[in-house]
Amino acid sequence: MKPPLDFYFDFSSPYGYIASEKIEALAARHERGVDWHPILLGAVFKHTGGAPLTELPLKGTYARRDFVRSAQFHGVERFRLPSTFPIATQAAARLVLWLKGRDAMLAAATLHALYRAYFAAGVDISAPEQAVAVAVSCGVDGAAARAALADPAIKDALRRENEQAIAAGVFGSPFIVVDGEPFWGVDRLDHVARWLATGGW
Amino acid sequence: MKPPLDFYFDFSSPYGYIASEKIEALAARHERGVDWHPILLGAVFKHTGGAPLTELPLKGTYARRDFVRSAQFHGVERFRLPSTFPIATQAAARLVLWLKGRDAMLAAATLHALYRAYFAAGVDISAPEQAVAVAVSCGVDGAAARAALADPAIKDALRRENEQAIAAGVFGSPFIVVDGEPFWGVDRLDHVARWLATGGW
Repeated sequence: MKPPLDFYFDFSSPYGYIASEKIEALAARHERGVDWHPILLGAVFKHTGGAPLTELPLKGTYARRDFVRSAQFHGVERFRLPSTFPIATQAAARLVLWLKGRDAMLAAATLHALYRAYFAAGVDISAPEQAVAVAVSCGVDGAAARAALADPAIKDALRRENEQAIAAGVFGSPFIVVDGEPFWGVDRLDHVARWLATGGW
Repeated sequence: MKPPLDFYFDFSSPYGYIASEKIEALAARHERGVDWHPILLGAVFKHTGGAPLTELPLKGTYARRDFVRSAQFHGVERFRLPSTFPIATQAAARLVLWLKGRDAMLAAATLHALYRAYFAAGVDISAPEQAVAVAVSCGVDGAAARAALADPAIKDALRRENEQAIAAGVFGSPFIVVDGEPFWGVDRLDHVARWLATGGW
């Protein structure tokens, strides 16, 4: 098995959600897995001076239109921009990091459930209880999940994940690294596909 | 004939260059022409708070890599990031606006020659004499071109073009508008193609 693709994302990123629905099948066609890296774009933006797309003049208006169009373009039909957007994503990210250390399959299933809860069903997963409820629906133990969210070791793990992402050059979501080659945005999935097929060009 | 695509671009934009090499064939496949709108991203950035990509932390490093990869992805093999980048593009933009009012075919030919001079041959087209020389190589009268660059009416035309672009929601380059639908970036050419084929989705 070749090394997995590194997939960096923020749970409040619409393009991250769309890409999360496509990346595993794309990777599998080239005998690759996906290593999921939930990060906080807010921490990255402190370093880069970036800002949430929808808060920018002109770009914000465009982005709201492009989110929906891009979801449809990629066949992610259930996308809907939540009424509360963007949101804090510490709880969701910590849950996934905690699960990654215990059960990678369950971590991936929970990650998809969290993303769909927010971007398809409009559930505010910034609330720890809502995030835990989504995890429980995937078979995660609720009491253990609540304990994990309060665990300093898990909080540290997320801080380290953010720092490692910045060190790796990550400045947005989704951000995909294939054998050291960086690709930013759901609009680079076609580049990723060609890179995987050809090993570079 | 259906209405043309509006193609907004800055002569210092690598993604604008790549898209400029693809858009006419794409439009022609759907019985469309291209209405070229040279603008100054600097004027737009004053309005939006944007900045040249290569000046941003992390994003700048990534962009330099992505310019080359995107050019290759789109089959624009001769792309090379010029040693002087970005540049002021008033002279090139004014020449094209002046020519548009006289001979649309010549304006398009000169536009492509200017873009290729900068991004394939490394000619610094910010220098009015260099820009005029490129136009002359396309059959433009040199003395008339020099006079046009100094003509207050042409300077006004460029100011109006920038204002009109901002009013139309343009915040980057390339920016393509198809029947009122906005598409930003060379990475939206696939969206433009599907939009043209289906009339929306």
